Amino acid sequence: MTSILDTIDSPEQLRALTVPQMEQLAGEIRKEIIEKVSVRGGHIAPNLGVVELTMALHRVFNTPNDLLVWDIGHQAYVHKLLTGRRERFHTIRQFGGLSGYLRRDESPYDTFGASHASTSISAALGMAAARDLKGEETKVVAIIGDGALTGGMALEAINNAGSMKKNLIIVLNDNDKSISDNVGALHQYLSQVRKVQTTPSYQRLRDMAKGSIERFPVLGDKAREAAGRAETSFKQFVMHSKSGAIFEELGIKFFGPFDGHDIPGMLDVFENVKHIEGPVMVQVVTKKGKGWEVAESDSTKWHGPGAYDYKTGIIKKNAGDPPTYTEVFANTLVEIAEKDPSVVGITAAMAEGTGLKKMHQRFPERYFDVGIAEQHAVTFAAGMATLGIKPVIAIYSTFMQRAFDQVMHDVCVQDLHVVFAMDRAGIVGEDGQTQHGVFDTAFMRILPHMKVMAPKDEEELRHMLYTAVYLDGPVALRYPRGKALGIEMSDELHMLKVGKAELLSPATLEEAERTDCAILAYGSTVAQAEIAAKELVQEGIKATIVNARWAKPLDEELFLHLAKTTRRIITIEDHVLAGGFGSAVLELFEQHGLLRDIETRLIALPDKYVEHGAPTILKELYGLSSAHLKEVVREMLGTQQHTLA
Amino acid sequence: MTSILDTIDSPEQLRALTVPQMEQLAGEIRKEIIEKVSVRGGHIAPNLGVVELTMALHRVFNTPNDLLVWDIGHQAYVHKLLTGRRERFHTIRQFGGLSGYLRRDESPYDTFGASHASTSISAALGMAAARDLKGEETKVVAIIGDGALTGGMALEAINNAGSMKKNLIIVLNDNDKSISDNVGALHQYLSQVRKVQTTPSYQRLRDMAKGSIERFPVLGDKAREAAGRAETSFKQFVMHSKSGAIFEELGIKFFGPFDGHDIPGMLDVFENVKHIEGPVMVQVVTKKGKGWEVAESDSTKWHGPGAYDYKTGIIKKNAGDPPTYTEVFANTLVEIAEKDPSVVGITAAMAEGTGLKKMHQRFPERYFDVGIAEQHAVTFAAGMATLGIKPVIAIYSTFMQRAFDQVMHDVCVQDLHVVFAMDRAGIVGEDGQTQHGVFDTAFMRILPHMKVMAPKDEEELRHMLYTAVYLDGPVALRYPRGKALGIEMSDELHMLKVGKAELLSPATLEEAERTDCAILAYGSTVAQAEIAAKELVQEGIKATIVNARWAKPLDEELFLHLAKTTRRIITIEDHVLAGGFGSAVLELFEQHGLLRDIETRLIALPDKYVEHGAPTILKELYGLSSAHLKEVVREMLGTQQHTLA
Repeated sequence: MTSILDTIDSPEQLRALTVPQMEQLAGEIRKEIIEKVSVRGGHIAPNLGVVELTMALHRVFNTPNDLLVWDIGHQAYVHKLLTGRRERFHTIRQFGGLSGYLRRDESPYDTFGASHASTSISAALGMAAARDLKGEETKVVAIIGDGALTGGMALEAINNAGSMKKNLIIVLNDNDKSISDNVGALHQYLSQVRKVQTTPSYQRLRDMAKGSIERFPVLGDKAREAAGRAETSFKQFVMHSKSGAIFEELGIKFFGPFDGHDIPGMLDVFENVKHIEGPVMVQVVTKKGKGWEVAESDSTKWHGPGAYDYKTGIIKKNAGDPPTYTEVFANTLVEIAEKDPSVVGITAAMAEGTGLKKMHQRFPERYFDVGIAEQHAVTFAAGMATLGIKPVIAIYSTFMQRAFDQVMHDVCVQDLHVVFAMDRAGIVGEDGQTQHGVFDTAFMRILPHMKVMAPKDEEELRHMLYTAVYLDGPVALRYPRGKALGIEMSDELHMLKVGKAELLSPATLEEAERTDCAILAYGSTVAQAEIAAKELVQEGIKATIVNARWAKPLDEELFLHLAKTTRRIITIEDHVLAGGFGSAVLELFEQHGLLRDIETRLIALPDKYVEHGAPTILKELYGLSSAHLKEVVREMLGTQQHTLA
Repeated sequence: MTSILDTIDSPEQLRALTVPQMEQLAGEIRKEIIEKVSVRGGHIAPNLGVVELTMALHRVFNTPNDLLVWDIGHQAYVHKLLTGRRERFHTIRQFGGLSGYLRRDESPYDTFGASHASTSISAALGMAAARDLKGEETKVVAIIGDGALTGGMALEAINNAGSMKKNLIIVLNDNDKSISDNVGALHQYLSQVRKVQTTPSYQRLRDMAKGSIERFPVLGDKAREAAGRAETSFKQFVMHSKSGAIFEELGIKFFGPFDGHDIPGMLDVFENVKHIEGPVMVQVVTKKGKGWEVAESDSTKWHGPGAYDYKTGIIKKNAGDPPTYTEVFANTLVEIAEKDPSVVGITAAMAEGTGLKKMHQRFPERYFDVGIAEQHAVTFAAGMATLGIKPVIAIYSTFMQRAFDQVMHDVCVQDLHVVFAMDRAGIVGEDGQTQHGVFDTAFMRILPHMKVMAPKDEEELRHMLYTAVYLDGPVALRYPRGKALGIEMSDELHMLKVGKAELLSPATLEEAERTDCAILAYGSTVAQAEIAAKELVQEGIKATIVNARWAKPLDEELFLHLAKTTRRIITIEDHVLAGGFGSAVLELFEQHGLLRDIETRLIALPDKYVEHGAPTILKELYGLSSAHLKEVVREMLGTQQHTLA
């Protein structure tokens, strides 16, 4: 059979296909995704689930003039394949390649970038309002998952959309999942809506959009043919009279549930819906992993796997690999919780990603998944803390931004004891721009009462978590994505001293005083610093290496002492320079009037959004490498072999 | 008549009163609030609206063991009067006096502090979960206004509460208002619920809690008497069968609307509700400003007035006062919008506070009030910006924290042109801890693509707003609360150069090079710097004064030049030191290897939550005064008259 995918440069060609051809194309797209993504891994199940939905949207709506706004955007691989990016598709999530999410600078079809959940309705409503101000006729379509719908900002947007009455189509991609299983009352409500099938909403949709296909015969015969077939398939998806009552009460016309894998059905639904006045929500039921048995049967595992063998459906794992930081965190939390019944774990729909599913398995009553709702998660934890419970909230660094105000207003002002475990801190790699956790130390350390730590390795992570749980007030710890260093871990946990760094080399402070410079390394960069120091010795350069441990409070005593004695201080961190660890060190030295007497160099990320790519590539590129550190030391000592730009 | 209020030290005494005595007490409380708050101003209308509700809650629930969690907390004056703080009530909102909000360190009855909206359900649900883990029987009650209910985190919490099934009572204080009139679909929905009165929900409540008064005869005869009277009053507040359908669908039992000013009615409602299993919402209709005609008839004006004459009900205003920064901002925005149809104004339920009501009056179609929903506001604006509209979002600095992730993820990553007008930046005064806008420069400047400004006076604010509107990408400007300086304002608007500061004195750069030091002042502190410089001249000290204008990008050329020539740099800002303007200046000098050659001093707020009080008191206390600036200069030059601590 000839490949139809080969002939698709843009949605134009898609619009010329027959329904059977589209069905063939769906299969080809699935094959393409399964094969190409296997090399590096990526979001599999979400994309397999939206093949028909995406084709139908691009066929019915006049993209890119009509605007599709995808929530999160990790389900946009199909969209990319249909909008001129097939040639580059094999580069997805690689350095210099296509983004794994949407980017406005990648394609005119990418109307709004994303990766954090729940933003699409707000953005689409803004576009609809702008369109009306400009007197244009553009259709605006937000596509949001049922998981993302529980995020507060999506609900804020629905509340606003229901009253603004702008023409806006919200496609609710209802797959019964966020990354993990969905939770929350809205989810339970939708499950119910999905099941009940008594009153035909199909008829209602037809009534409301009466004659629309005749009036706007965009699709011509093929659409009519599709629409004809649709009559039957639709009737399998009829709804309860109460279906969507919540949205209807809020002023949004609700239609569905419809089968999201039925191409003619989808074409007919969208063809009708696009002519309805005011805000409309269409519930489309899809199956994550659809069309590939292994992914369909365990869509959580296949949400965003690493590299895999597409023939066998086996995700690649090297035996004997060190555990991930996430695993070490989760195991340690369970270990602490074994002995202390007041310790609880809280996640915002990231049971797997944060490892908290281990808490769920071991102590279901002390595990709370609040849904995609970081703000609520933090204040919920603060409420618990007022009664002496010790909450550990595990949230990715980048998602913690969503709850910045709650950290400030509900936790820090009241000096409540809440532990923020910020996973995926620093360069996260292939997820890119929006996902690097490179602002956390800055936004956390500016808040009074907050304490901020980062471990140098997985063993230290264990003690830091223990320390965080048994300190008072708010405590944040940040640790990287991915594999840990593979060092041996102790059985016992102990408290670290607040604001005390670790002198790694030389062995004593007296020796350190006589070194050429002191490198204060924060978190995951300690490893680079140790490598650099060892290699510098070969060149006759002695560098003190300090594992800073705390960005707040800093180890004032040690840092001041080393500044006074070595007179050359270098900081290194996997975080933006502005406001980060190095900036905190400068502030400290400034307050003690030391800056005149020393030389300083800050190694950190620049003032730009770091692109996607393998962490090693990105760290090299942005100077978070032992090689660059060595160059900086040489330059500082006036012994450089290369001139720095 | 003897004063009953005089006899109330705690809710204990309240619980011994008859209903007629409680009604007398309600009047006394209103009188106390109206008189005592008149001296300094405060939240009048919200408190007059909840007198009966607050009494009923403290009477029925066993506070402080049972936990009342007030949302926002500006309506807690009645609560304070009933919980042992009557003696100090006249000190409210004054330095060293009672807070105008709730504080856990002020009273054991203040279970959770607040001031930002929409947090109470999350906190209360956390408490309920903690209570259950501890096996206790405490009742937990969140009291939230219908305005705050539109905040995303409240909706996240409702979604979670509906599925967790914890015993939790949510009192919906429905006064049809946030500060301004409410907006949004949920509001329209509640308005409808409030009006329709066909099916008795009172009966349903009675059925569900059958026999509870008998089983728990806490109130004894008086309650029975109250309950007897209630039968009648309740029936005036019966509800449509659909009332509360949204909440019922989400798994929360819904009762109401009930008359929030009917004491026996409230007693009976809460007495019944407290024994119902699972999450319950009780809709109580109150009137802001209740019992004082002037406040009742214009509750927006009386939401939080300044000082007033309580006999005449006239709010004090000094004729000829300078305008507020808010007024100048709003007038300038309208002026710009007159000439440019692509400029729009967006507020999150702060039409009056931000001055945007002027946009509403002049260009209703280019004004968007999205409700208490800062996250949505920002991404809505980002959506508009993609289509070439120029959105100006006016949000208080402290509330901008709520949308930090949206600023980062939806605006800055995509380099979209959105203007953030951050009103109430710096020390805000009487609102205290949670409301000072002292983190904004830090959390904004760490984001790539962002530009951050602060004007020295109202005239500069005009040009900064104009500049922000006609730059590209994200731009934030911050300006203080309250009266501007009263200087003359120009008719014409002009663009300021990006990253260019203003040399205020001496007149030329050549002269500046020969001064003893350079003071880089940011925003409202420029005025103090100018005063200090003039006075230092008397002592023979010449200081260069620079109006920094931009915290990002900094005026690198000027700052580096002054550092190299004067060799003494002082920064001053009304913002925390960590990560702020001064910290950015240090980073700049560090990057240019200048720190060894110069002396620096950073004047900024310390790492603590600044208490409430008059701005002049607080600025003096924390060193943001010309006197302290002079001392720092003298100390730096070694000519100090006083030794610094």
